[in-house]
Amino acid sequence: MKPLRIAHVGPVATSIPPPKSGSVQMMASLLNEGLVARGHDVTLFATADSVTSSKLHSLFPHGYWHDEDMWPWELYEMMNIAAAVERAEQFDIIHFQAAYYPMGLPFSRLSRTPLVQTLHHSPDADEVALWKRYPEAPFVAISKEQASLLEGQNVAGIVLHGIDTDRFTFRPTPDEDDYLLFLGRFTEGKGVLQAIEIAQRVGMRLILAAAEEPYYREAIAPHVDGRQIVYFGEADFDAKVKLYGGARALLYPIQAREPFGLVLAEAMACGTPVAALDRGAVREVVDDGVTGIIFDDLEAMIGGLRRVFNLDRQRVHDRAVERFGIFRMVDQYIEVYHRIIDAHRKAVR
Amino acid sequence: MKPLRIAHVGPVATSIPPPKSGSVQMMASLLNEGLVARGHDVTLFATADSVTSSKLHSLFPHGYWHDEDMWPWELYEMMNIAAAVERAEQFDIIHFQAAYYPMGLPFSRLSRTPLVQTLHHSPDADEVALWKRYPEAPFVAISKEQASLLEGQNVAGIVLHGIDTDRFTFRPTPDEDDYLLFLGRFTEGKGVLQAIEIAQRVGMRLILAAAEEPYYREAIAPHVDGRQIVYFGEADFDAKVKLYGGARALLYPIQAREPFGLVLAEAMACGTPVAALDRGAVREVVDDGVTGIIFDDLEAMIGGLRRVFNLDRQRVHDRAVERFGIFRMVDQYIEVYHRIIDAHRKAVR
Repeated sequence: MKPLRIAHVGPVATSIPPPKSGSVQMMASLLNEGLVARGHDVTLFATADSVTSSKLHSLFPHGYWHDEDMWPWELYEMMNIAAAVERAEQFDIIHFQAAYYPMGLPFSRLSRTPLVQTLHHSPDADEVALWKRYPEAPFVAISKEQASLLEGQNVAGIVLHGIDTDRFTFRPTPDEDDYLLFLGRFTEGKGVLQAIEIAQRVGMRLILAAAEEPYYREAIAPHVDGRQIVYFGEADFDAKVKLYGGARALLYPIQAREPFGLVLAEAMACGTPVAALDRGAVREVVDDGVTGIIFDDLEAMIGGLRRVFNLDRQRVHDRAVERFGIFRMVDQYIEVYHRIIDAHRKAVR
Repeated sequence: MKPLRIAHVGPVATSIPPPKSGSVQMMASLLNEGLVARGHDVTLFATADSVTSSKLHSLFPHGYWHDEDMWPWELYEMMNIAAAVERAEQFDIIHFQAAYYPMGLPFSRLSRTPLVQTLHHSPDADEVALWKRYPEAPFVAISKEQASLLEGQNVAGIVLHGIDTDRFTFRPTPDEDDYLLFLGRFTEGKGVLQAIEIAQRVGMRLILAAAEEPYYREAIAPHVDGRQIVYFGEADFDAKVKLYGGARALLYPIQAREPFGLVLAEAMACGTPVAALDRGAVREVVDDGVTGIIFDDLEAMIGGLRRVFNLDRQRVHDRAVERFGIFRMVDQYIEVYHRIIDAHRKAVR
């Protein structure tokens, strides 16, 4: 099959891959490098401090997360998309990572080349009602859960995120110093208060790893005693891998309906089983009874936590690698690209 | 001359004309109706509750100022611009009123028809540095002052705003109950504290007319005694005309460098002379010694206020009508459109 000429448009908030955190940037980088590895002709539209083996088309030296004079940020994003659309005839497909909202829509009918967007959040009904003004514009959903919110849109494919499973070192046994782990942003929706309640009621240590935010100081810090409930701070990549691998289980008592759950895949890749509430995309990411256990509510999770500990960590790891390896994601995107390009050719004919 | 086919793209924040305040919407409406009156084929891209004698292309029933579910507002604006650019071949020119920032730039190279933008704020150097990525994209500046900030951009014309001078009733003599007037938003930049100081030092009454905002409650309200310093509230159109016409002078001790000064033109149309500080576009709007007096600083204004009172109100009015009538603005825009269309034809050839 002929290599595809792909314009891959990342957000210009920070570099790709990101210097620290930035899940959209990390995913964009993995996909980008994977597409190159599969032999495609890829041009990444991103900040000049991005690092890639593809071609790099950069309008800006660095991202607006690092420079408050880069305002309004939307105009920077729009110009980055426009740079690809203005060169549409040089590409077979333009792929925009819609980190905040699908800004690619208003450009889609002005592009000679089909423009597909990966959506990274759970849209509400009012947003989707607006997007229906471009019902033909293709989206990639990152889960069935997210796709179910996209009624009236053209969902060209559902592709779960991949992670760099090689970098999430497998640990056959957790630390002797037993602990549970909560990792993620401190928000109500992430269920950090519920994680604390679980730890307290089962009498186990809980390590909280996330950046300190107002919500932490207001709602979480009063529960942190440094003995049973321990605050680690924000973990960089290496610390994250150690924290995952050493934990008996990752607690994921998620309250919001999230479109994915990257920490689930990451913990599982380290061999650490997850205890998750049945919300949002959890059922698509966790293989119930294999890589973790999915509970209906907090009481069930507290009662069933021991069953999570008994899951086979080797099997957890193997399944995670199989399901969340980079090339599963990359190859699914290539399929989606071909599907969109073929449909476009037929429509134009 | 053949009528022009004009796509006039307004903001979709509220209707055109606006139900209450909204200077961009008011200017857009006056221009739009004036273009129709001059025989052009105009399509206004605006909310469905807009009122116009031109064609109306509306994507949205109402504006995002009135509906918090219309979020993010930028996407609404982008879709409204895109609707015009998608139909570019039906128009000779597309004119976008850039109420917040020139969102039309990223669409300009994707449009078959030239896209011109009127800028409604004073951009800082970082903004303009970004816009230079589209150095060919034409702008209309609303004053020389604003144009001077647009280094590196293509300023296709400078067109001062027009106002509906017929609706600003001329008053040959002010109210017997002598007062000075401050009208405008309560912000530091507008110089409302300076207006209060002037009134106190010359021992005259001052009426403040603007919407109550946090800055009013914090900084202004303590000075309001209801006798010398009077707070009127937010004035609707009729009240505004009465307040202008009855005042001995409009105080305009502006602190910020503003790109225009609509209240100056409005007061002058009512025959009321203005006392203004020499900042921003003031010298372009006020004819020094005819429609008002321009002072270097507050002390000079306090010392010279009597000279403002002595200006001939009939002459103030006549000059305002001559300089800020709708058709002066409309005809200048038509000239600018022709200039841009001709340049575009030559470039394409």
